[in-house]
Amino acid sequence: MKFFVDNYDLNAAISTATKALTAKSAVNILEGIYVDASEGKLHVKCSDLSLQIETEIPATIEEEGVIVFPGRIFADIIRKLPNDLVDISVEGTTAYIKCGRINTTIQCFDAQEYPEMAPMYMSEGINISQNKLKSMIRQTKFSASVDESKGILNGILVEVKDNNLTMVALDGYRLAIRKEQISGSTLVERAVIPPKALNEMANILEDSDEPVKMHLSMANAMIDLGHTKLLTRLLEGEYIKYSQILPKEYEIRVKVNRQEFYESIDRASLLARENKNNLVKFSFENDYLHITANNEIGKINEDVPVQIMGGSIDISFNSKFIIDILKNLDDDELYLDLTKNISPCVFRGIRGDEFYYLVLPIRPSLA
Amino acid sequence: MKFFVDNYDLNAAISTATKALTAKSAVNILEGIYVDASEGKLHVKCSDLSLQIETEIPATIEEEGVIVFPGRIFADIIRKLPNDLVDISVEGTTAYIKCGRINTTIQCFDAQEYPEMAPMYMSEGINISQNKLKSMIRQTKFSASVDESKGILNGILVEVKDNNLTMVALDGYRLAIRKEQISGSTLVERAVIPPKALNEMANILEDSDEPVKMHLSMANAMIDLGHTKLLTRLLEGEYIKYSQILPKEYEIRVKVNRQEFYESIDRASLLARENKNNLVKFSFENDYLHITANNEIGKINEDVPVQIMGGSIDISFNSKFIIDILKNLDDDELYLDLTKNISPCVFRGIRGDEFYYLVLPIRPSLA
Repeated sequence: MKFFVDNYDLNAAISTATKALTAKSAVNILEGIYVDASEGKLHVKCSDLSLQIETEIPATIEEEGVIVFPGRIFADIIRKLPNDLVDISVEGTTAYIKCGRINTTIQCFDAQEYPEMAPMYMSEGINISQNKLKSMIRQTKFSASVDESKGILNGILVEVKDNNLTMVALDGYRLAIRKEQISGSTLVERAVIPPKALNEMANILEDSDEPVKMHLSMANAMIDLGHTKLLTRLLEGEYIKYSQILPKEYEIRVKVNRQEFYESIDRASLLARENKNNLVKFSFENDYLHITANNEIGKINEDVPVQIMGGSIDISFNSKFIIDILKNLDDDELYLDLTKNISPCVFRGIRGDEFYYLVLPIRPSLA
Repeated sequence: MKFFVDNYDLNAAISTATKALTAKSAVNILEGIYVDASEGKLHVKCSDLSLQIETEIPATIEEEGVIVFPGRIFADIIRKLPNDLVDISVEGTTAYIKCGRINTTIQCFDAQEYPEMAPMYMSEGINISQNKLKSMIRQTKFSASVDESKGILNGILVEVKDNNLTMVALDGYRLAIRKEQISGSTLVERAVIPPKALNEMANILEDSDEPVKMHLSMANAMIDLGHTKLLTRLLEGEYIKYSQILPKEYEIRVKVNRQEFYESIDRASLLARENKNNLVKFSFENDYLHITANNEIGKINEDVPVQIMGGSIDISFNSKFIIDILKNLDDDELYLDLTKNISPCVFRGIRGDEFYYLVLPIRPSLA
């Protein structure tokens, strides 16, 4: 096995693929970087058997072959070499890396021992732009449960139906729904993607209109950027039938300026009682939202101008849940739909139904 | 006590003063921010009784007074208020903070209970530019010992003599000396400044030619930027008579390009044996430095062009010690002065004697 590759490209490929690496694996070889030199290309791959990221770069292949480099040290060496042509040859499991006057020899793993994730059943796949998919992940994943005992609620439900891609996350106290139009088709309509895969998807997607293809099957999901593919196992189990818990109507609609609302709650939360779920009280009346919070050190109150349609209401929330929504949206203005101080509050856009957030209030007896 | 202050100024003052705060103090009130409103100014002060930072900002004082705000929460509230005029009034130990439509009430500490550091005996002080003092700290402190049992060697020795300010740090394996011309005088010629004070000095000094005044006494050191003063206790004890251990002569002088040398050692250190003090081998011969390192994973070797005056030598070092020197200097080229492979190596500038570094080699028996 022998190839020449531009060190800048190799660095970029390693940086992408190693996002799937776990720092310490029980299986030594899974801390490695799998490199396949064939057909004029270098395929660089890492996997933890749940998540796999593979990317390809151009290279001059003199002799085809596969090898697994020791991950951390190979990545460090390549990162610290000058940006120049690197000459890598492998004999047995010994790799010789040459770059200018620098010679390095490192011991590698036999690629035949590398455990592979099962290949997935592929269909046509759906098409969406990278920045849209990235924003869908960012604007839902904070609502997923971080309590590992909650199993499937740690992931995000992905639904494909009627030319729409919908992502849903909920943790029992709040729910997020995010929707975009798409084209194409998949093998299954519903899949639940685990949190680590979602984070790394968001990391490798770019803030561009360039397309990405998503494939969903019974057991796996894949996103395909052309040069780079991310493959993940799905979370198993039945996701909550969330559409049944969405309120059908509301009594009071409030139009708020997102940034103003965010800054006010963020300040008030400084004096919210942490042991009472970061409780902040909201009083909507006469086109003002009156926010109050207090704890043993002090108290804060603030009036925020809003537009109220439909009456007045006093209601309390965990400020963290509302801050999470407000800081991850980009819209200037939002609607809050309220009914009773024991009923969920819904956040919507002024136009369209791209997003929908539901937050349960804290009951007056606790507040 | 009542005053109006621009929130932007108050934020900056808090950010500077709180550098002296310890997160958790055994004395509750020392987690506080001491504020003295008098003579048209606000004096903002924090202290851990070893280190004190005090800064002043303009304010409109309606009623003079002193109070100690609870540190973390006061800093957070002020940081999250809009940049506007803030109206603060204190009754007893309750503070009322108003800014636009935002009202906050917090419980404070009685300023009379705030423990004060003893004031220092002041002399004329010495004058130096801020960027020079900042660079002196940066270019010496990495050589100080981080082993707390080494006491006085955790600090930096500051010497004032013959219109020179000299800073010295050493840990038993390496030594750094940094010198600048100054004017003025102090009460003592030698003082050892503790590491936390040095770090915070470097943080509050700006990269500018603006002057700073340094005062040294038997027990304390102070730097005075005009609006801001940092006062620290000194480390007690007798510092090592370092000038006795500096080699008088050398046999081989090598001229190196700092950046090239740095990158080569940085790479080689990836394959240095950590359990053998990051050992990297150097072979100076025929105007090349041949660097080699090896561990259980692999080996690396590299040739770096240098200019050798005086013969050839094989010598081994802890690569970390050399990396620390090279990455903290700004010069393009350096001299390395060598004698035997068991004698210290000295790093000097090509011109002048602003800096001087000494590193002990690793004995051949270990290498």
